[in-house]
Amino acid sequence: MSYEAEWRARFGEETEPNPDLPDLPWLRQVLMRRTHRRYAARPVPQALLRLLLGTAFSASSKSDFQQASVIRVRDRQSRDRLAALVPDMPWIGNAPEFLVFCGDAHRVERIGELRGHINENGKLEGFFNAAIDAALVLQTFILSAETAGLGCCPISVIRNHAGAVAEILGLRDKVFPVAGLCVGYPAAAGHVSMRLPLEVTVHIDHYNDGRPAEAIDAYDRRRDSRYSLPREQQRAPDLFGYSSFYGWSEDKARQAAQPEGEGFPTFLRKCGFSLD
Amino acid sequence: MSYEAEWRARFGEETEPNPDLPDLPWLRQVLMRRTHRRYAARPVPQALLRLLLGTAFSASSKSDFQQASVIRVRDRQSRDRLAALVPDMPWIGNAPEFLVFCGDAHRVERIGELRGHINENGKLEGFFNAAIDAALVLQTFILSAETAGLGCCPISVIRNHAGAVAEILGLRDKVFPVAGLCVGYPAAAGHVSMRLPLEVTVHIDHYNDGRPAEAIDAYDRRRDSRYSLPREQQRAPDLFGYSSFYGWSEDKARQAAQPEGEGFPTFLRKCGFSLD
Repeated sequence: MSYEAEWRARFGEETEPNPDLPDLPWLRQVLMRRTHRRYAARPVPQALLRLLLGTAFSASSKSDFQQASVIRVRDRQSRDRLAALVPDMPWIGNAPEFLVFCGDAHRVERIGELRGHINENGKLEGFFNAAIDAALVLQTFILSAETAGLGCCPISVIRNHAGAVAEILGLRDKVFPVAGLCVGYPAAAGHVSMRLPLEVTVHIDHYNDGRPAEAIDAYDRRRDSRYSLPREQQRAPDLFGYSSFYGWSEDKARQAAQPEGEGFPTFLRKCGFSLD
Repeated sequence: MSYEAEWRARFGEETEPNPDLPDLPWLRQVLMRRTHRRYAARPVPQALLRLLLGTAFSASSKSDFQQASVIRVRDRQSRDRLAALVPDMPWIGNAPEFLVFCGDAHRVERIGELRGHINENGKLEGFFNAAIDAALVLQTFILSAETAGLGCCPISVIRNHAGAVAEILGLRDKVFPVAGLCVGYPAAAGHVSMRLPLEVTVHIDHYNDGRPAEAIDAYDRRRDSRYSLPREQQRAPDLFGYSSFYGWSEDKARQAAQPEGEGFPTFLRKCGFSLD
């Protein structure tokens, strides 16, 4: 069986057809998955949303502690306040559904109180474990929603506004936003985001970044041959000037050179984590 | 369409049949998904593994920074050393494949060097973003593998041995293990892990833990009616004694009262993160 067209879409590379591979349309769908930011007016049926939340929470969970919570934002005023935090992403305000996936290190503490075995789940590892649990639920929700014909857009930038999000959603101590998620029926085709080759991201036995320059140059070119970032989209030319060739790596290097998330440790401490 | 049997398996609750729900066998599969720790001798075909890694890296990534790496452990000696870290999980050593999903905040820095825009991606938010990227790739791999008939067992406990894992796998600074994953064709049926009801984990507009005691008592009873933890599996009776009714919440409260991961902040600092 062959997945050549889907592999080309995802990686911009050719792959060999292989008659031994099973024909699994769902894997094709994942290779062709894309973010959707524009939605049809059609609402998401409530029973379907509940079903998708059920599949989402079927994800594995560290030690079966189940440290994820989802806030479904229905109140118009709360949604508008969330949307106002990120003015260049109007889809936060206008998606048919908006969910916030949270790490929840509070519930385990609460259960400890209920059972009389007091625990302190507010160290750095408590944060880490709850964050990963939430991400596993988030990704299961996304893939389930896509399987039902919905489109999603994860909003990781809410991490830069964690304190405000926590206030708007009335989060308890040790409950923190991992990502928002816009959900709806897609109104446009969207595009497949090309990924780094597995030769860069998958390592055998030992981490290896021996030849990243060539691999990343070639990746930049493959992306560029599908879609060239126009000159006016070059990031912060006042700081970095204009590049004659402006690829993914140049764009990401510029983006990373302007730090985000300065306030995050302050938020986590305020939220009850000790970071020790 | 109805998902009653699958809902009952996952949540131990009844749900109404709903003729408007679409019939999606993949959602049924996710509701019935389970961890597998025993594997048939049959190897995982290499082309299939590559395909599954391709779908895995199709997950969304914060700002398109693509901060996940996977280490595939093929070397017998490395595998044995990893397995020796967790003697009570022999499946780490004997699963047909073992992968380690890592947050990778190093690659973005390397790209900054290549492009001459020096960045510092070693703050707490750099860790958080890379951790979430890795978790999204991990969960997409798991669901893809299950769709291809494989079974998986995530190994989050390697977080308690992060320094040793980093040494065995030759991880660079700012590359850290999020979870290991055992992969193979299942040799046993496994069982569906019952989840907290959505009334506890999904909140409308505001975080709400108003009535957790009743909801968690009821959940404990539902779990217990499917499988009672035998008296000899009560955790640390020397510390906590024996409970006449020993449910999930008692077990988790006891587990959380014995802290893990004390060394994690030390590891992260050694790994190059400043936690500020």
